[in-house]
Amino acid sequence: MGSLGNDALEANSLFNLNPLDTEEFRRQGHMIIDFLADYYRDIEKFPVRSQVQPGYLRKRLPESAPCNPESIETILQDVQNEIVPGITHWQSPNYFAYFPSSGSIAGFLGEMLSTGFNVVGFNWMSSPAATELESIVMDWFGKMLKLPNSFLFSGNGGGVLQGTTCEAILCTLTASRDQMLNKIGRDNIGKLVVYGSDQTHCALQKAAQIAGINPKNFRAVATNKSTEFGLSPDALEVAIQADLEAGLVPLFLCATVGTTSTTAVDPISPLCDVAKEYGLWVHIDAAYAGSACICPEFRHFIDGVEKADSFSLNAHKWFFTTLDCCCLWVKDPSALVKALSTNPEYLRNKATEARQVIDYKDWQIALSRRFRSLKLWMVIRSYGVANLRNYLRSHVKMAKQFEGLLVADNRFEIVVPRTFAMVCFRVAPSAMGITFNDETNVNELNTKLLESMNMSGKVYMTHAVVGGVYMIRFAVGATLTEERHVSAAWKVVQEHTNTILNSYPIRVRSN
Amino acid sequence: MGSLGNDALEANSLFNLNPLDTEEFRRQGHMIIDFLADYYRDIEKFPVRSQVQPGYLRKRLPESAPCNPESIETILQDVQNEIVPGITHWQSPNYFAYFPSSGSIAGFLGEMLSTGFNVVGFNWMSSPAATELESIVMDWFGKMLKLPNSFLFSGNGGGVLQGTTCEAILCTLTASRDQMLNKIGRDNIGKLVVYGSDQTHCALQKAAQIAGINPKNFRAVATNKSTEFGLSPDALEVAIQADLEAGLVPLFLCATVGTTSTTAVDPISPLCDVAKEYGLWVHIDAAYAGSACICPEFRHFIDGVEKADSFSLNAHKWFFTTLDCCCLWVKDPSALVKALSTNPEYLRNKATEARQVIDYKDWQIALSRRFRSLKLWMVIRSYGVANLRNYLRSHVKMAKQFEGLLVADNRFEIVVPRTFAMVCFRVAPSAMGITFNDETNVNELNTKLLESMNMSGKVYMTHAVVGGVYMIRFAVGATLTEERHVSAAWKVVQEHTNTILNSYPIRVRSN
Repeated sequence: MGSLGNDALEANSLFNLNPLDTEEFRRQGHMIIDFLADYYRDIEKFPVRSQVQPGYLRKRLPESAPCNPESIETILQDVQNEIVPGITHWQSPNYFAYFPSSGSIAGFLGEMLSTGFNVVGFNWMSSPAATELESIVMDWFGKMLKLPNSFLFSGNGGGVLQGTTCEAILCTLTASRDQMLNKIGRDNIGKLVVYGSDQTHCALQKAAQIAGINPKNFRAVATNKSTEFGLSPDALEVAIQADLEAGLVPLFLCATVGTTSTTAVDPISPLCDVAKEYGLWVHIDAAYAGSACICPEFRHFIDGVEKADSFSLNAHKWFFTTLDCCCLWVKDPSALVKALSTNPEYLRNKATEARQVIDYKDWQIALSRRFRSLKLWMVIRSYGVANLRNYLRSHVKMAKQFEGLLVADNRFEIVVPRTFAMVCFRVAPSAMGITFNDETNVNELNTKLLESMNMSGKVYMTHAVVGGVYMIRFAVGATLTEERHVSAAWKVVQEHTNTILNSYPIRVRSN
Repeated sequence: MGSLGNDALEANSLFNLNPLDTEEFRRQGHMIIDFLADYYRDIEKFPVRSQVQPGYLRKRLPESAPCNPESIETILQDVQNEIVPGITHWQSPNYFAYFPSSGSIAGFLGEMLSTGFNVVGFNWMSSPAATELESIVMDWFGKMLKLPNSFLFSGNGGGVLQGTTCEAILCTLTASRDQMLNKIGRDNIGKLVVYGSDQTHCALQKAAQIAGINPKNFRAVATNKSTEFGLSPDALEVAIQADLEAGLVPLFLCATVGTTSTTAVDPISPLCDVAKEYGLWVHIDAAYAGSACICPEFRHFIDGVEKADSFSLNAHKWFFTTLDCCCLWVKDPSALVKALSTNPEYLRNKATEARQVIDYKDWQIALSRRFRSLKLWMVIRSYGVANLRNYLRSHVKMAKQFEGLLVADNRFEIVVPRTFAMVCFRVAPSAMGITFNDETNVNELNTKLLESMNMSGKVYMTHAVVGGVYMIRFAVGATLTEERHVSAAWKVVQEHTNTILNSYPIRVRSN
């Protein structure tokens, strides 16, 4: 690689080639497809969790940008040698960490088309297909989820694709905030209160911070094992009443279907009943588990959604659509538009002024927006609703399989009931021959077990601590995962548990 | 296409194929590369601005999602027949509208790799390469722009890739807001004032709205022709002093290098001097023109940046990096982190706790983040700094070429001086034989001229209204644009001007 220099003289012959030259695009594009296909073919050879140390890459790359062009062959070699070792392989079939980032061929192709067209779809005018396909696909998906008509365009609601749940919550929170401040006066922003549970994704807290809600007015209502860490409507009401008595203004509730720590489900219907009594905006965050609700047997988890104001899920988590793709439906798009619209002269156009079109820039934070609906459209069409349901069911089935193996081995404990495709487990205190009052040791041993498994490179799982209990999360959902990978993961769990229990100070039975 | 139905029975044989099957990925991936290469080859055959009517797509697509899979061949046929007509071709060499969305082969390949790996890089741990490459490339780019060391990681500042400028402004505004409220008390949020000019991008207003700044406290300081629509430091100071006298708290200034309407440049250095005297956070929005500042001859436009707190540009505008890719540098990353961090248990890890790593989730709105640095890295390496400079210069040269043609034809007027690669022009009042006091008619005629040209499908330009004057914006920067396209566009301008002047009620000379 060169260094910054006397560039006018150094620009070389490649300059004659346009950076978007058609035939060069074709040549390099085919190369990258083969590169990625080989990556998927070989993916099990890499340690799932990257094993590099902090700062590894700065040692390997030059300090400054090259002055002269480098060939795609050289760059791809560097991707293989320098980048791939620093990647944690979310697409590996042995990836069971966090929540899945479930790629698919159709999702990938949709992203390629979107990148290839590279349109900026801030309003209808700037690329009508980008807006129209999005509204159509959001209606499709809404129907697949049996959302009430009030969330569809035909019912004067509608859906929009955002990047992430954080953005979806920030937009709906801002809409509800401005609706309320228009009633009670802007000076009262310091009185607004936002509610979630102690299991709600930190996106809510972050959105509240950004939207100017006083951090003192953020309520993470405590949950406990008796409700399987779901938010209790009674506890919510107690919190709301206390705030009202203190002269505050309850504003917004975020209820979760499938919490990040344990996939707990807040009881949507009774929570909405409480919230609506006090005039709160209710947002349902179904980032992970919402996708499963296209299966009739899971749909009941969002019963009551018809009483909510907004609902979102991440298609990039468990719906085969590559990052990023958060689906948000709202009942009252005008609330978003009132809070988020700006109408500069340079974007004025007839279609907008005739009120014939949606301008999605007014439904989100940013003005510029990618053509994200292409990938969701291609996922739904390429696989079809029936197969999509079966894919999701296959992940749930594999999680059940893993759960069964744990249950049959009395050294382990399922810490919270499995609801979707994630199992939360730990080595039980009894396996360590210790009593219930010594949770610290149990947590420590499980911490070591997890780190030991992840260090092996054979699997990647992550953890949660809920109700003081450290648990290992086993989330099935990587697209390439098959039953044999779950069986192999179980062997890894057994081996590492054997080793760790054998080295444990207190002698315990090994099975 | 089928409709929703009895899915358990209908799932067909394709279900046996994994949605990320390697060889099927290879087959379909190659198909899409050819599809896109053909699209670029044929792109001049399509009308640049889509000619469809609102609602066109709903008439062509089914109302519900298909139950059964559809082949990629069928879907691509639909992309060609149903989607492409609804696309405004931002990649067309005849696209001169808004600002460019300059794609390139390298940018496309980087996005493909990022999509293929599909990692979620919220923190270092979740994919070390994603974090480390980003910090390295942001230092590279910072050096290319000759940003002071205080914006680089080596100087305790640093850069981050966001989606868009809206997000970059919202993050820095939130950071400055919380810094100030920690000093003066949260109850004073209603006193904070945000400053820009009447030419500042509406992203500032939107960010202020979202961050809970009272809309009454948003100052769009008036600009005028005498300063070429740049923000006057004196006018800023007058506004600040008036707010102080009213008991308000000046907080944040957004200065622009290359405004959206006319590419005006606010005088960074004296504005920073004023702002710093009153303790404001200064953000420099160089979304469009920042890229040009890698050329020594344009660097002076950001002189004074060393006095600012944050600086951003959109690599997806004029730096060959596909949407979305906003580069943000800050001097004090801890201000961002304090305002935007959340540290849930399930993301706890050793690297973070040892403070050895950057966790970019705390530098932005969302937690989840794509591996965006790959595309910027590939653009810089594939073309090299020298060629990148020359590409940008070639766009400026083509804009000059177009400007020269306008100047030589006395029917036209360059409304504001050209600074970068955009020309703002109009048919002059004199060409219409009317006096200066009848601007309405002039604006009307130019509106008709623009619409007439865009209707032809041969070019796409957009407009602005500044100081009451309607002008046509001719922005060069689409990657495929060559001199011959600019010549052809000039012919379109001439033809349509001839027609429109000939049909104009008042007889005027036709050349």
